[in-house]
Amino acid sequence: MRNLTLMTDLYELTMMNGYSVLGTDDKTAVFDLFFRHAGQISYAVSAGLEQAIEYINNLHFEEDDIEYLRKNTDFSEKFLNELRTFKFTGDIYSVPEGTLVFPDEPILIVRAPLAQAQLIEPALLNIINHQTLIATKASKVKMSAGNASVAEFGLRRAQGPDAGIYGARASVIGGCSGTSNVLTGKLFDVPIKGTMAHSWIMSFPTELEAFRKFAEIYPDNTLLLVDTYDTLRSGVPNAIKVFDELRAKGKKPVGIRLDSGDLAYLSKKARKMLDDAGHKDAIIFASCDLDEYVISSLNEQGAKIDAYGVGTRLITSENMPSLGGVYKLSELTENGVRVPKIKISDTHEKITNPGFKTLYRVYDGDGKAFADLIALEYERFDATMPLTLTHPTMRWKSTTLEKYTMKKLLVPVFRNGKQVYKSPSLSESAEYCKREKASFWDEYLRNVNPQIYKVDLSDALYELKQRLINERTGGKQ
Amino acid sequence: MRNLTLMTDLYELTMMNGYSVLGTDDKTAVFDLFFRHAGQISYAVSAGLEQAIEYINNLHFEEDDIEYLRKNTDFSEKFLNELRTFKFTGDIYSVPEGTLVFPDEPILIVRAPLAQAQLIEPALLNIINHQTLIATKASKVKMSAGNASVAEFGLRRAQGPDAGIYGARASVIGGCSGTSNVLTGKLFDVPIKGTMAHSWIMSFPTELEAFRKFAEIYPDNTLLLVDTYDTLRSGVPNAIKVFDELRAKGKKPVGIRLDSGDLAYLSKKARKMLDDAGHKDAIIFASCDLDEYVISSLNEQGAKIDAYGVGTRLITSENMPSLGGVYKLSELTENGVRVPKIKISDTHEKITNPGFKTLYRVYDGDGKAFADLIALEYERFDATMPLTLTHPTMRWKSTTLEKYTMKKLLVPVFRNGKQVYKSPSLSESAEYCKREKASFWDEYLRNVNPQIYKVDLSDALYELKQRLINERTGGKQ
Repeated sequence: MRNLTLMTDLYELTMMNGYSVLGTDDKTAVFDLFFRHAGQISYAVSAGLEQAIEYINNLHFEEDDIEYLRKNTDFSEKFLNELRTFKFTGDIYSVPEGTLVFPDEPILIVRAPLAQAQLIEPALLNIINHQTLIATKASKVKMSAGNASVAEFGLRRAQGPDAGIYGARASVIGGCSGTSNVLTGKLFDVPIKGTMAHSWIMSFPTELEAFRKFAEIYPDNTLLLVDTYDTLRSGVPNAIKVFDELRAKGKKPVGIRLDSGDLAYLSKKARKMLDDAGHKDAIIFASCDLDEYVISSLNEQGAKIDAYGVGTRLITSENMPSLGGVYKLSELTENGVRVPKIKISDTHEKITNPGFKTLYRVYDGDGKAFADLIALEYERFDATMPLTLTHPTMRWKSTTLEKYTMKKLLVPVFRNGKQVYKSPSLSESAEYCKREKASFWDEYLRNVNPQIYKVDLSDALYELKQRLINERTGGKQ
Repeated sequence: MRNLTLMTDLYELTMMNGYSVLGTDDKTAVFDLFFRHAGQISYAVSAGLEQAIEYINNLHFEEDDIEYLRKNTDFSEKFLNELRTFKFTGDIYSVPEGTLVFPDEPILIVRAPLAQAQLIEPALLNIINHQTLIATKASKVKMSAGNASVAEFGLRRAQGPDAGIYGARASVIGGCSGTSNVLTGKLFDVPIKGTMAHSWIMSFPTELEAFRKFAEIYPDNTLLLVDTYDTLRSGVPNAIKVFDELRAKGKKPVGIRLDSGDLAYLSKKARKMLDDAGHKDAIIFASCDLDEYVISSLNEQGAKIDAYGVGTRLITSENMPSLGGVYKLSELTENGVRVPKIKISDTHEKITNPGFKTLYRVYDGDGKAFADLIALEYERFDATMPLTLTHPTMRWKSTTLEKYTMKKLLVPVFRNGKQVYKSPSLSESAEYCKREKASFWDEYLRNVNPQIYKVDLSDALYELKQRLINERTGGKQ
């Protein structure tokens, strides 16, 4: 396993050295990881926890890391020496991968000695931001695709190897049924998908021969790429010939793949040609600059597509290539006293929620998600009593539920540095994500103009927040 | 080193197995890697070759890779057995990292047995696409920043660890003077940059105390983050107090960092406050959602900023998060005969250039880059004779140079599977990139409406291309 301990921002180490020199590195700090409202994102599919756990478990400074820091910084020998035995000794709480999460709510909480909590900030954000971004994009693409399956095809356009490997992983959590990336298939036991490239066709004298040889070698897996020369005049007729030959041998062809041109038009024409030739069960697989918007448009045009391969725009989340997750201090133990911390901003939405918190999902009488509730960790709720949920800033907006259930979304992952959570398999996380989506009304999850899901603050948290704002600003604007 | 051999698309292995079964896996193939005209990209800064070389050198299938394929595909035992001894035995030519490259010209050429050349396609594209994308973005940001330095600050928003590590590497090639990512600093010996986070300030009772402690610990590195509470009423005045104290001890403060708010306004006000207090040499470092466009706008507004930290929009190349590089078959040896290959498309720009080629840069009498020339590899040019350069499609557009020099841009990297090229250090590549940029008129490199740099085809290549197009289409449109 790669040692990513130095994969941090210099200022984290600069601050750690400072805390070490001042003797304040052991103060217990609480940091919340959350993302803010961002352009096209109304909900996100949480992903990346398994890799975050590996990173934490593998945290250690090698001698040459320390030597590098000695040469390139003015850190104290005391601190450099402490790094020799550095390990993570704190607590981490997180939502499981595949959980649907919403802006401003803590999706991961670190409670650890200040210096440790600082060191891990950039890597945690990097890993969780990336995979959550791609899982979310995959969810949106799958939402548009409906019953058609979606395969992740973006390795060559991903932002480096990890983006290819873990982006494919995340896309499976979000709703893809497989990936072209064989390494991801091996590492996470997910279906691998693929057919042939244009270069296969071009390496034979004729398209028909290229198809025929492929069918001979893969009689049970004959999905033929039909757009190398002329989709409707050459590709589909040649595919039909080879499908006829396959059936004569008692084999069932898989179908054809369209990779360019007007997919709506070509798929309808090709469908009719295949049907007329008696290949009603041959599927049409389509790829080529797809995303959730193009797929919705294809649906509207009555395209006849059974499965999609989605590349660049999924693996890079092209229209929004970063999630903007942040990691903010919410509590610091000073002289044995736990002091809630707040970051004030001129922009009201950027004021953080102070204190050591937890996150509940509240379900209505039908068992559908109704709202999320951010509360202080010590608060207890009695599910036999009515529950009043109140808007985070417009407190006159509130609803009281008589019949409801609550679930804690954050589960313990590390306690005192020890992993206490076992990551599910990737297919389990993907199944969990499906159940998560089923627990929401579609209106919250649609890709265009979704309903905004409620994320409320408990009264105790709201009051703490107001008190700290007033203390800090003296009530001035 | 990680084994990325399985980091390929399934269809590559599917085709390899097919070629193995047919006995055509040893046909020598030539593939060109190039990118097409894309939105905001008029030129690109080539990067990633060093990692591509590592990948090629490390290609090998482990037993458990083969076992995985046996269980999850219907590949032949013959092929699976061949994978045991698989290694790359071909040739690779590439432009050096830091070279300025243009759409449609081959920036890397693979000449290898067909099966090998297929296997490496996705990883080569992944690595080169990613780093070239980020180096290019960094070059654009640096172009806007002018004499102000630019540090890469995007680790937490990068698309996974590699995107953080190698994105930072690429950004240094493109023009950044350093990165916050300590691991990149260590791996590639580049300057690491950073100050403190808001959490440092918040962990002290007052901002002044936070600044003072920092200055005590880092008297030679006092760059203070001044926007935690109120930049002009609290941050800058407190920084000035601490700078005064530093100077009283004979130390020189570094400066302040602005991380939010109106950077143009705040920097001008802060500059005046610092100057009036006698800290004319204290720099103003700015960060916060920057890119080449924001920095140009800050310049226009007369912002007083000496150095920039650029994060999300650089490390993800936010406005264009993929380069769209492709890898196309251009020649295949059949029965001992080298047959040039072409991919026809309805879109004229998508028709590929056939044959085994090379790439020249032609400089005018002033030594400035005048045009690039794609030619067939066997062609020879006599630099004592006038050179006529002709537009790739509009052949009536041509220019004849009397006085010129030519340089081959593609250098041998692998010959018969053996590495014959030594990667320069990262700082050498960055220096080379600076010289590359100086060899172009600014008009080609400006960020808005750049002049289009000429990439021409030799007569021999043009004629070959026309012949193949006519053969394929029979002259029909």
